Order: sequence, then C-alpha cells, then structure tokens
Amino acid sequence: MATLRVPPAVPSPQEDCEQLHKAFEGWGTNEKLIISVLAHRNAAQRKAIRDAYQATYGKDLLESLLHETHGDFEKIVLLWTLEPSERDALLANEAATKWHPANRVLIEIACARSSQDLFTVRCAYHKQYKRSLEEDVAAHTKADFRKLLLPLVSAYRYEGEEVNMHLAKSEAKLMHDKISDKAYSDEEVIRVLTTRSKPQLIATFNQYNNEFGNPINKDLKSDPKDDYLAALRAVVRLICCPEKYFEKVIRLSLNKLGTDETALTRIVATRAEVDLKLIKEVYQSRNSVPLENAVKHDTHRHYEDMLLALLGSDQN
Amino acid sequence: MATLRVPPAVPSPQEDCEQLHKAFEGWGTNEKLIISVLAHRNAAQRKAIRDAYQATYGKDLLESLLHETHGDFEKIVLLWTLEPSERDALLANEAATKWHPANRVLIEIACARSSQDLFTVRCAYHKQYKRSLEEDVAAHTKADFRKLLLPLVSAYRYEGEEVNMHLAKSEAKLMHDKISDKAYSDEEVIRVLTTRSKPQLIATFNQYNNEFGNPINKDLKSDPKDDYLAALRAVVRLICCPEKYFEKVIRLSLNKLGTDETALTRIVATRAEVDLKLIKEVYQSRNSVPLENAVKHDTHRHYEDMLLALLGSDQN
Repeated sequence: MATLRVPPAVPSPQEDCEQLHKAFEGWGTNEKLIISVLAHRNAAQRKAIRDAYQATYGKDLLESLLHETHGDFEKIVLLWTLEPSERDALLANEAATKWHPANRVLIEIACARSSQDLFTVRCAYHKQYKRSLEEDVAAHTKADFRKLLLPLVSAYRYEGEEVNMHLAKSEAKLMHDKISDKAYSDEEVIRVLTTRSKPQLIATFNQYNNEFGNPINKDLKSDPKDDYLAALRAVVRLICCPEKYFEKVIRLSLNKLGTDETALTRIVATRAEVDLKLIKEVYQSRNSVPLENAVKHDTHRHYEDMLLALLGSDQN
Repeated sequence: MATLRVPPAVPSPQEDCEQLHKAFEGWGTNEKLIISVLAHRNAAQRKAIRDAYQATYGKDLLESLLHETHGDFEKIVLLWTLEPSERDALLANEAATKWHPANRVLIEIACARSSQDLFTVRCAYHKQYKRSLEEDVAAHTKADFRKLLLPLVSAYRYEGEEVNMHLAKSEAKLMHDKISDKAYSDEEVIRVLTTRSKPQLIATFNQYNNEFGNPINKDLKSDPKDDYLAALRAVVRLICCPEKYFEKVIRLSLNKLGTDETALTRIVATRAEVDLKLIKEVYQSRNSVPLENAVKHDTHRHYEDMLLALLGSDQN
C-alpha cells in the first residue's frame, strides 16, 4: 500500500552518488535530479547511497543536502532521506522537547508503528540524543498528558491476532463507565489504551459501540476543544484506522488558509513507504478530488515536485 | 564475575544429550550426572543441548527434566536450563499474575538487567504468554505499585556513561523535597527513578547524600514495614549495588527458620552467569562465613549439590 515507486533496474549506490554529486555541482542545484534519485529509492537503498556518499566524498549526504536545498523542499528531502527509525527519533525529539498539548506526533509514532519499529525508534533515540525517548517525554510533559504519553511511547504491545472477547466486553463496560463519569484520565482508561494489543482494543471498541450505541470516539467528544480528549481520540483512530487519521491530517493541512507544510511533509515522508496509497484512496473518496490535485493547488516548485514524486505521480 | 565453571574441553551437544538420556534411563535418576552436565554449561551451550535433545529424542529436555526430578532440585534445574530471557519471562509472569506487595521479582528483573536484556525478556514474554509483560503488570497491580512497576518494566534506559551534574543536583533536591513531604509516590519521584540512566541516577543519589547528609535509602525508611517504601529502596539498591541487594536476599533466605528456597533458587539461577562471584564476596565479608558453608548447612542432597555446582564449588 506504499506509493513509493522504485524503477525496475535500480542504479548502483555508487552511480546514484555520482548523480547526486552532479546535482550539487556548480552554481545552483539540480533539484529535479535529486528528486529523480532519492524519491525513487526505498529505505535500504537510500541508506546504501548515504554510506557510499560518505565513503566517496568524505561527508554525510545529509550535510550536502542541507547545504544545497532550502525551505520546504529541504525539509522533505532531509526527512525522507533519513532511515525511518532515525526520522521518527528526530520527529519524536522535536515533539517531546518542544511539547505542546495540540502536538500529535508522539501519538502517531507510538500508535502507528509496529511494536518492533517503535522499539527501533527508541534504540535510534539513544544513539542520536544520548537519552531515552521516555526520559524526554516524561521530563517535558505534564499531568494527564504525561500519564497517557509515557506508557504509549514505552509500549511493546503484543502483536498476535488472538482476541479475548470476555475481556473486550468487560473493558468496554469499564471504558463506558469511566467516560460517562467524565473520568477521561482515569488510570484504568489509560491502562487499557496503552497496554492492550491492537486487535484486542479494536474488539473492545466494537463491543463499546454494540453495547452502548455510540462509537467510543463520539463519547470522547464532549468538549471538541479539549486537547486531552483530542489526544485520546487520536489514539483510538490510529489504532483502528490509521489511514483515516492520516487523511484527516493531510486534509486539514491543505484546507488551511496557508498550507500547514510541517504536517503535510511529515505525513508524506513517514507514510510513502507504508500506506500512502490507502490514504490517497480515502482522501479521494472523502474529498471527491485526487490528493495530487489538492497538492498541486497548494504547493509550489521543487517542494510540489517532491511531494508528487513520493505520491507516486511524477514522470520518473 | 560469574561463578559458572565450564570445562576447558566441552563435549558436543550430542554427547551431552546422550549423558542426560543415560541419567534418565531405568529406575531412578542419576542426579549427579545431570548436574555434571547442565551445571557446567553456559546459556548458549544449554540451548544447543536442548535443541539437540529435541532433534534426537523428539521431546523437550525440560519435559524430561520435569518428569525425572522433584522438589527444590527440580525447580533449580528447570530454571537454570531455560534461556535467561525465557527464565525471566517465567519469573515475571508468576510475579505479575500472583502479585503481592512484598514481591520484588519484577523490580529485580526491571532494574538488574541491561536495557537490551530487559527488552529481550519482553520479547520472550510475548512468545510465551501471548500478551505483553506491561499488560499483565498493569492488569494485576494497583495504585502506587502500578505507578512504579509499569514504567519500570517498560523502560529502555539510556546506557551511556554521560552524567549531567546540573540535572543530578536539581533532581536530588526534587527527591529530597518530595521525600521530606512524605510524597513517596509523587509522579516526579517515580519519573526520575524509572526513566533516568543508571549512571545519572547514581550521581543523583550521591548528590542527595552530599547535600542532605543522608543516603536516600535512609530517608526512605520512615516506616520499615511499608511495602511500597521497601520497593523504592529495592529500586535504589538494585541500581547502585545489585550485588549487595542480592547478598541480602540470599542472607535472609538462609537465616529464616526454614530456608526460603524460592528466593535462594531464583538468585543463584539468575546470577550464576552474571555476578554471583561478587555476591559471594559480599556475603563472606558481611557474614564472616563463605556462602557455600551456609548453603551446605541449610540445604540437602541434590538441591545442595546443584547449588554448590552453580556456586562454582563442586568437584567437576
């Protein structure tokens, strides 16, 4: 369900390096050449290019990209070129150290990655920041948000498909009781959301809907402006239907007066190798226009070209 | 600092299997033969023996051991034969599902293993129990204990040696303020203990002692019978000086009217390949007798023989 398109005959990392080096040479930068290489290589291939570049030219490809590109194009090229775990560690570090209640990046990383991938992010975080992810999250967040975010980013959820229906029933009732009492940050609510496996939680949410006549997220909407409730809803959506969650982030980033490039860049860079095709389908059916059209309307030049390439819609 | 002694020329896993099979044959069991093989092989060698046994005799070596051995000898042989991560997963599962406030096993596993080893235990837990460790801990513990244990077992602490002295000072003061107010389960106290790296925490505890004139654990002793305070002290001791903590567990297990074989077995089986030599030295200097003498005095027959073998004091 990725949108990334890799050509049938991939040049060697050495050849790709030479192309990139050529793109950086002389006055100006050949952005089209950068896009034609990097936007059409998967994570392992990009890693091999970065290694070859270091060996050949004695510096990090990221450094050269930082020097040769600018603005939103720079941001998406850098984010995309990183390994997925490094990229998530970077995003998580920014979100943790400059944390504010409306930021959903930590929740995205904690809930929309596999258990093993989340652990790999924690390993990359050690390496890049000489601290642990949970240490920074705990140090920079407070109160209800900390109670929710700390176990979320520390989780290593079981990933088997087994579901205990008896447990789903009893925990649906527990959630309903607490939500009815507006005890949204009750530790039992947080325990269920942060420790149960995703299939188990989906069964619990289904039971909730069946038993109490409302999707759980509708009951978590009592105050639409409450950031903590919005965070809980994000957890539920990212567990049940990440593609719908991500479609909404993209939709809101484009519908704004002035595009939210940060969000758009993040979602495209983190999902192009995962489920961006699915997100595009949801977008089309929700908005009656292809995502590419909306992107063309709201973005420009090399940034637009890079987005379209990662969306699988350029000529390369 | 292990006590495990592996012979210079180790027989092949196949030969070891044949010896074990011989030990199980006919009427009765040759316990001495079992000990001479298993108590002198490291984790990788025991794993190879178990694999070879399965291939040769079509059943799990643990099953045969369960059938052929009894009582405390059975328990230590089984626990020892398991891979360290499987063993910890088993111990953690017992501790979580039959949890009571005086049980320290989860704290031992969370604090006296490396970050990577603790993660490996969480992986083994998925495989063995089809749930996550933190899920079971959260579901079976309550109140202050849950607030402490859940982040402890979910931690992936940074393991570099870097220490931030400024942070150590401010967090020592924070800990002192909270402890002075008897706010032992304050979330800041728990945050520091469960997320900071071990070198950082040791610096914080040293600062505490320097600034406020008491070791932190002395100030955590206001009520010696309070299980939660005892749990906090165990965390501090396991981070600062695990060998002293384990010496004390062994000492208390032997000093009791009626030996506490469960604790003795657990510590010997989990530390023989790690730091049991150090624990023995602390024991000798604390009690003025060698640990082996105390073990000989309090235990019997094959159980005694197995303990002495793992303590590095048999004839093999």
